[in-house]
Amino acid sequence: RIYNLNAYLIRCLMKPALAARPGRPKDVKDTRERCLVAAELRFADQGFQGTTLRDVAAAIGATSATIIHHFGTKERLYGRVLERLVASLDEYVGPTEGCSAEIVCQMFERFLDWSLDHQHYAQLLLRELMENRSRVSRAKRLHLMELVSSYVARVREGQAQGRFRSFDAELFAFYTFGAITHFSAAAPTIQRMVEDARTVERFRATLRESVLTMLGEKP
Amino acid sequence: RIYNLNAYLIRCLMKPALAARPGRPKDVKDTRERCLVAAELRFADQGFQGTTLRDVAAAIGATSATIIHHFGTKERLYGRVLERLVASLDEYVGPTEGCSAEIVCQMFERFLDWSLDHQHYAQLLLRELMENRSRVSRAKRLHLMELVSSYVARVREGQAQGRFRSFDAELFAFYTFGAITHFSAAAPTIQRMVEDARTVERFRATLRESVLTMLGEKP
Repeated sequence: RIYNLNAYLIRCLMKPALAARPGRPKDVKDTRERCLVAAELRFADQGFQGTTLRDVAAAIGATSATIIHHFGTKERLYGRVLERLVASLDEYVGPTEGCSAEIVCQMFERFLDWSLDHQHYAQLLLRELMENRSRVSRAKRLHLMELVSSYVARVREGQAQGRFRSFDAELFAFYTFGAITHFSAAAPTIQRMVEDARTVERFRATLRESVLTMLGEKP
Repeated sequence: RIYNLNAYLIRCLMKPALAARPGRPKDVKDTRERCLVAAELRFADQGFQGTTLRDVAAAIGATSATIIHHFGTKERLYGRVLERLVASLDEYVGPTEGCSAEIVCQMFERFLDWSLDHQHYAQLLLRELMENRSRVSRAKRLHLMELVSSYVARVREGQAQGRFRSFDAELFAFYTFGAITHFSAAAPTIQRMVEDARTVERFRATLRESVLTMLGEKP
């Protein structure tokens, strides 16, 4: 599986051009969708503070009034974007059974898949964690803790059974999520620093090795 | 050593108040310094795009003209901020001798110390890695690759001697730096999610355990 990190962005950028084709029916659902995609990219790129409704509107050839009509305020538009982020994450990181080291490893790999496939979401998540100092309520709304907890529970289950080494499962989960999120958000820069087209594959192998070594499964 | 994550920020915020004391001599060097500190905090908080010279000026009770007088453009002010970041990092992560697992571990811990003591720098670094897509030249100017390379060289030295396990030392370094930078930048949010005042100490223990396990030093 080869990741083209910019494929999604290119697809999104092409959308307004398609929509401008003469004779294409104007669809309310389509406008909402295009607003949301444009907003995701702007919020990921410029942060909540750095994004204006005017920027988002301009990206789809509309006016701020259109955005306000569909979403109300910037806060509410941002809220909708976060909801879509969570829904997208849930698709990748659904419930799994069992608690072998391989299963825990695959859970983290699925989070890596998600953050590489939706790199702008990974950036948004990072910005939300960084900027959301006074509004942790939003992080709670994001159900981030529930996500982390599902990983922690799996690790602790294996530890209780004596299959995995004993360590701080909760901080280990934050440590591993952090390494993955950081890599995905900074991947284009890191790839150029490393100067190797196989950087993503090498990161995945490192993630696997780090998780499996830490778990230290007993046969 | 207890980290008060906001101590530095509070110190910085108090500076303008001190400077406003009647009778305090106006010092050019002091104005430059205060501009830089205000700029660091704004860039860390709002990103390069989200920061205006007017914001920075307002934070120290000056006008944009003062900033332009001292630094020229926003780009040059940002460049100076990045230089200070690197100088600060060099103070913590200086050259070390030997290549035992404990030494490699302490090198990463020093990076953790730096990013916790200068949390706004950790945020800036993260933003720079995230946003610097078309301008990797700046990452090169940041000498980030030199920093990573010094860690990689130490790990490879130990691997060549057969002391450490064999793995991808370069990606391991990015993985570990990523976990640390992510934690520091998101620490206030993570701390509230974990709901434990000892989160920083637990992260440090997890970092040590993860690095030592991966190196798997032979006696």
